[in-house]
Amino acid sequence: MTSSDSPVALPESHIDLLTRALPAVLVTLMPDGRPQSSVVWVAHHDGRLSLNTEAGRQKVRNMTADPRVTLMVVDPDDQHRYLELRCDVTRISSDGALEHRSELDRQYLGPDHWTDPATDRSERVVVDIVPVRVNAYG
Amino acid sequence: MTSSDSPVALPESHIDLLTRALPAVLVTLMPDGRPQSSVVWVAHHDGRLSLNTEAGRQKVRNMTADPRVTLMVVDPDDQHRYLELRCDVTRISSDGALEHRSELDRQYLGPDHWTDPATDRSERVVVDIVPVRVNAYG
Repeated sequence: MTSSDSPVALPESHIDLLTRALPAVLVTLMPDGRPQSSVVWVAHHDGRLSLNTEAGRQKVRNMTADPRVTLMVVDPDDQHRYLELRCDVTRISSDGALEHRSELDRQYLGPDHWTDPATDRSERVVVDIVPVRVNAYG
Repeated sequence: MTSSDSPVALPESHIDLLTRALPAVLVTLMPDGRPQSSVVWVAHHDGRLSLNTEAGRQKVRNMTADPRVTLMVVDPDDQHRYLELRCDVTRISSDGALEHRSELDRQYLGPDHWTDPATDRSERVVVDIVPVRVNAYG
């Protein structure tokens, strides 16, 4: 998975859209190039972005074949304010995926609603993504 | 603009996501195939879907070059409930575009906040889209 694009910084003005536990729309590319969308949760730490999903999903196959994705987060209080992140997937791995899922659970569902990695039998992957173009509106 | 796919019906269970004046994420394809996303309003009449946008936008150029788009609407009350519509653009036209914009204004902003077509100097287009695959979640 390589790209000729360079990573870009996220604008401070819209970082809240990545830290307020808002649903993000992830766009991947089907084998024929048609866009596929789904709702995902996004972890944001020190400018690094990652997702977590089940290993067998179509979006994982898509991102493995073509690393170009787009993330979209719309402010629920103002639909004219949104962040479009055109990204490259840099890594898809099962390493630490259950712990990562548990962190996202806490972020999105609150401290009392997390899946315990010790008993989690799901097959998950962490997907690291790097923005190569950022469009912030509103 | 042609496609080998056939139009499909919208599920009654999720029609409300198209009639509640919710922001939709439109995905188009850049010339290099990378997905581009933006927020749009959607008009839904008798199973027919259409958008309205400024004529000169990147998304219009994208849809003219490749008619394959995806629309995503997430229920603001339940982020696990959403509608993904993979669509083909069947028509992009300036005919009636200002009146169409005015209708969308009323739908999304209310009866008192519409742009008068008689004084609207913007260059708009109506974009008709036909779903070829529908994924309804939640």
